[in-house]
Amino acid sequence: MSHITSVDVRDIRFPTSLHLDGSDAVNVDPDYSAAYVTLHTSDGEEGTGLVFTCGRGNEVVVAALRSYGALLVGRPTDALLYDLGEASRRLVHDSQLRWLGPEKGVSHMACGGLVNALWDLRARREGLPLWLLLSRMGVDELVDVVDYTHIRDALSPDQARDILVEGRRGSEERIDHLHREGYPAYTTSPGWLGYDDAKLVRLSRQAVADGFTLIKLKVGGAPEEDRRRLRLAREAVGPDVRIAIDANQRWEVSEAVERVNLLAEFSPWWIEEPTSTDDILGHASIRAGIAPVRVATGEAVANRIVFKQLLQAGAIDVMQIDSTRVAGVNENLANLLLAARFEVPVCPHAGGVGLCELVQHFSFFDHAAISGRIEDRAIEYVDHLHEHFTAPVRVESGRYLAPTEPGNGARMKEDSLTAWEYPDGAGWRGLATAEARR
Amino acid sequence: MSHITSVDVRDIRFPTSLHLDGSDAVNVDPDYSAAYVTLHTSDGEEGTGLVFTCGRGNEVVVAALRSYGALLVGRPTDALLYDLGEASRRLVHDSQLRWLGPEKGVSHMACGGLVNALWDLRARREGLPLWLLLSRMGVDELVDVVDYTHIRDALSPDQARDILVEGRRGSEERIDHLHREGYPAYTTSPGWLGYDDAKLVRLSRQAVADGFTLIKLKVGGAPEEDRRRLRLAREAVGPDVRIAIDANQRWEVSEAVERVNLLAEFSPWWIEEPTSTDDILGHASIRAGIAPVRVATGEAVANRIVFKQLLQAGAIDVMQIDSTRVAGVNENLANLLLAARFEVPVCPHAGGVGLCELVQHFSFFDHAAISGRIEDRAIEYVDHLHEHFTAPVRVESGRYLAPTEPGNGARMKEDSLTAWEYPDGAGWRGLATAEARR
Repeated sequence: MSHITSVDVRDIRFPTSLHLDGSDAVNVDPDYSAAYVTLHTSDGEEGTGLVFTCGRGNEVVVAALRSYGALLVGRPTDALLYDLGEASRRLVHDSQLRWLGPEKGVSHMACGGLVNALWDLRARREGLPLWLLLSRMGVDELVDVVDYTHIRDALSPDQARDILVEGRRGSEERIDHLHREGYPAYTTSPGWLGYDDAKLVRLSRQAVADGFTLIKLKVGGAPEEDRRRLRLAREAVGPDVRIAIDANQRWEVSEAVERVNLLAEFSPWWIEEPTSTDDILGHASIRAGIAPVRVATGEAVANRIVFKQLLQAGAIDVMQIDSTRVAGVNENLANLLLAARFEVPVCPHAGGVGLCELVQHFSFFDHAAISGRIEDRAIEYVDHLHEHFTAPVRVESGRYLAPTEPGNGARMKEDSLTAWEYPDGAGWRGLATAEARR
Repeated sequence: MSHITSVDVRDIRFPTSLHLDGSDAVNVDPDYSAAYVTLHTSDGEEGTGLVFTCGRGNEVVVAALRSYGALLVGRPTDALLYDLGEASRRLVHDSQLRWLGPEKGVSHMACGGLVNALWDLRARREGLPLWLLLSRMGVDELVDVVDYTHIRDALSPDQARDILVEGRRGSEERIDHLHREGYPAYTTSPGWLGYDDAKLVRLSRQAVADGFTLIKLKVGGAPEEDRRRLRLAREAVGPDVRIAIDANQRWEVSEAVERVNLLAEFSPWWIEEPTSTDDILGHASIRAGIAPVRVATGEAVANRIVFKQLLQAGAIDVMQIDSTRVAGVNENLANLLLAARFEVPVCPHAGGVGLCELVQHFSFFDHAAISGRIEDRAIEYVDHLHEHFTAPVRVESGRYLAPTEPGNGARMKEDSLTAWEYPDGAGWRGLATAEARR
């Protein structure tokens, strides 16, 4: 009987800090990285997952993946793949490891990497991209996949079932539509804080020319700086293109209200991460103080329990799920169901390395078979590091094309893995040599 | 000039799961463990910190301590010890490592271990136990030690200063009193879920005989089981001894209300961790539904931002700080100031390994020089594993005696470290041999 024979974990990093791609008010010099995990079965199958990090500390997630991964080794593959709810719960609620979170930070992200690798195995076995596997999976199985612990006051299994049954109506038509038309994307490429004004204007215009109707700018520097950059972007794109802004948790609560209101004349579409994502009550205050500007958050929301409260408190207008922050597909299914129940649109966080490849599946699935909605929704898109993936995202005319390759999207090319394994890959050795020569 | 020469981290575990000490509704089989860190300086000074865990996963915290510890190596000792606010902020807000939390879970606990080791260095250099160092430190320095990020809507530096200036009035008299009389303790020793009824009754009576006026029972098993155990304990201790109950996050929100109300006839003093500690709104609902029974939480509260909201929402009656969950002395100072500002009593969480030794300093300091209060407050006490510490806590007649040894209390005996280093210490090798013989 097939079983899990090994859990292989690699520390993959890219030296993105050299060009300030991805720089914002808090993450000033990220080296986009992935703790990259491959599950091997005795039948020769492979399932891939990854956890995104900003460089230093990737080795800690690697350690956590190895620790949790040990719980999978030797277990029967089918028992894991055909009871993915139980597989996830055994990782997330392990009686000793649970203390490390509970359900947050490094330990939770490691659970997510492994859970996603199990879903990758399942999707590959069925020859389907993850979003199609989910969109056509039996409703009973989907209901069972969700961990309702500590969210039952907002989402019961019966309520989940009702949403999923309703979502299945007309799903095949929507799947056809997604295959033909794709799903809206928005781009953050123009707006990194480390870019100069000329680059900001050039990339903003380019984004519109490329078909994007929503772009995003990082804010959270000096007030006048934020105003100048937002004015430049607004002038570059005209009045009809939406501009979201993102403070990456830089502000205090009252400061966020003041700072967003200072930018109101440029009609920002949403303010993202105005303050700590732990601050549910703070987000509710901010939202009340800046309407009609929307409040968005999620890339750093630790788990479904925090999302539940952000929704209960009326603290957010937009839920930004992330593919590698929470405990994988199962918990993001909970998040999508919570969003559907509170009728809040989901606009996933992406960028980094592999996050676009992974998270697109959730929006496609949501439109196909959960909310059925697509208006005022878009998946973040950042145009770097896709070349390292075996099935890179395809974005055309401002839309993600439907993923067609089997799996969850996390698989990287072997050449890339070899070159950028840290610290001994050829890429890193080359940089060390260049540094030594300077 | 003295600088940090190395950060030595060891994986120390005790096989407590063999006897179900420490068992509760969620932590069913903990092996109480410590990721144990020692900072060495070029002058031969040593500072100790530790992070408590439940066994599996201790190695992940070890990895995180090494990663964050690398940020300290080579830095001048005095610059760290005499600007402990900045020292902490450079760890907690490291631009790349921050993604791992932010400020929660493994990465945050590792920051706490290192920050506590720096405070240990400082206290040893000044020849003072941590609580006396804090109680006599200049108010300006204390104000600067706190990280106000994301809590300024509840605690500004000026407000912190006002509390600390007020707290200094009469502090020497209170210090004298603490030296003479100690600080109230409460005991959880009778109430572990794995103990049978006879042991529960025997240990409850023993606790009263030992002078305790508050004991704690674990709940969260079957409803009738909880009722039986609480009835037995109430009969054993009589009507005047307070009995707190602790569900270790076992329940959903409405379930917690029902379950606590089922136990109301036994007059529980507080319900601890009725549900996920991430659920601020849930705690507020529960508190409204079970009054006059109090709500307590904190051992799993990730950071000051969550405590801030629990206080803002009126969700807790008792704040239970933990010495190794948050980012060390600095963040617990923030927590104590928040509690003082909202006039909520602090009853620290302890037990595990070393938690009593570490956390007692915060209650002594709070009474001496922050709140000045002591009524309705007590430090948790569990009577195991103290023998491994160079300065074990002293609890007599239901009270902690004032710590007198210089430092923060985290230092363990070298023999204990050698014996219980995992997996190669003599203690663990002996268990493996015994296991193999069975």
